[in-house]
Amino acid sequence: MTDCLFCKIAAGEIPCNKVYEDEDFLAFNDINPKAPVHVLVIPKHHLASLNDADEQDVGLLGLLMDATRKVARELGVDNPGYRVILNVGKGGGQEVFHIHVHILGGKILPF
Amino acid sequence: MTDCLFCKIAAGEIPCNKVYEDEDFLAFNDINPKAPVHVLVIPKHHLASLNDADEQDVGLLGLLMDATRKVARELGVDNPGYRVILNVGKGGGQEVFHIHVHILGGKILPF
Repeated sequence: MTDCLFCKIAAGEIPCNKVYEDEDFLAFNDINPKAPVHVLVIPKHHLASLNDADEQDVGLLGLLMDATRKVARELGVDNPGYRVILNVGKGGGQEVFHIHVHILGGKILPF
Repeated sequence: MTDCLFCKIAAGEIPCNKVYEDEDFLAFNDINPKAPVHVLVIPKHHLASLNDADEQDVGLLGLLMDATRKVARELGVDNPGYRVILNVGKGGGQEVFHIHVHILGGKILPF
C-alpha cells in the first residue's frame, strides 16, 4: 500500500492535523474544508472504497461508522448535528481510494 | 414505534416506491429527489440516528453500509460512482428520526 496517501498518513509517514486516533481509526482535518468543521475518518486498514467491500468488511464498516459517531461527539458537532458523506468511485467524487468518511458540521446544513 | 414514518413504511402500512428489500433492510426512492437516482436505505429495526447508536448497534451499522453497497450495485450507480449521505440530527438536515442512508447517483457529483 506504499502508494496510498491515507495509508501513509495512518503510518505517520505523512503529517496530518489529527483530531482523533485509536488502535484502528484515525481522524484529521480535511485540507480543503467545506464547512467550519470538516474532518475525515479513516480506518488504518486499507480498503479502497465502499464499492470494494465484501462480506468480511462488514465489521470494519460498522466500526468505521461507530468511530465517526465518537469523533463527531468529541468535536462537539453531535448537537445540533452533522452530515456524514462517503464519496464512492470517481463519479461519486472520491479522490483518495482509501475509504474515508467526511464529517461536516459547525453550521446548519440544509439538504 | 407507531409514530415513526419509516417504521410504518418498513411494516408496509405506508406505501413506498421500493427498489430493494431483504429480511432486515428496505430501500425506496426519495420523494424529493436531489439527483437522477436518489434512494433511501433503512434498517427495519428502529434506530433514531447515528447519534443514538451504541456499542450494540455496531453490527447493524455495518450491515446498513453493506446493504447500501448492494443497493447501489443493483441500481447500477456503482460505476462511475455515487454519494452516500447520512444527515445526523436536525442541524445536520435529518428530517425523519429513523436512521437512513441517502444514495445519490446517476450523474457526476462534484464535491
